[in-house]
Amino acid sequence: MSYYKHHVFFCLNERANGEASCAQHAAKDAFDRCKARVKAAGLAGPGGVRVNKAGCLDRCAGGPVAVVYPEGTWYTFVDADDIDEIVDRHLQGGEVVERLLLPPDVGR
Amino acid sequence: MSYYKHHVFFCLNERANGEASCAQHAAKDAFDRCKARVKAAGLAGPGGVRVNKAGCLDRCAGGPVAVVYPEGTWYTFVDADDIDEIVDRHLQGGEVVERLLLPPDVGR
Repeated sequence: MSYYKHHVFFCLNERANGEASCAQHAAKDAFDRCKARVKAAGLAGPGGVRVNKAGCLDRCAGGPVAVVYPEGTWYTFVDADDIDEIVDRHLQGGEVVERLLLPPDVGR
Repeated sequence: MSYYKHHVFFCLNERANGEASCAQHAAKDAFDRCKARVKAAGLAGPGGVRVNKAGCLDRCAGGPVAVVYPEGTWYTFVDADDIDEIVDRHLQGGEVVERLLLPPDVGR
């Protein structure tokens, strides 16, 4: 069994040269909201959910992005409602949020 | 299928208050070595291996630590030889390196 039931990684990468990056698209706000909502729902911790900072996940064309392991589900999101839906339906409910899935061919 | 066959996350967390953290234990050197060796072996990229920076993975008592998804294999390591063995045997060979496994009860 996985140490965390769901381990979520948010790309918080910020490029020094001013190129587009997830950090420019409020990725940190999304990370903070996800972490707070997971904690408030009592989901955080071993056997539960871990919301993690990450560097560039190299699927920048679909950014901002996050990935949930061990299931390997990739999401792209726009606003707080998207994050809330990922927490409530996927991290709590165990259901994939189809409308926010990152298309499989999206890369750097 | 997972976008990456093996997605490796290294904790590179550094605590501002001087408390013990993975960054104090050469986690960045390990990350750099892993990334370079994966690239040199031609394993990097979609369908292959991604070596990623991460924030605190919250299993600090066993640090420095890294986790490989989607399999959810957690490692602790000491030196460059350990990293090379993880790359060669696990990321290239698909075999778990038993001697470097983080014990399941190790937490924060």
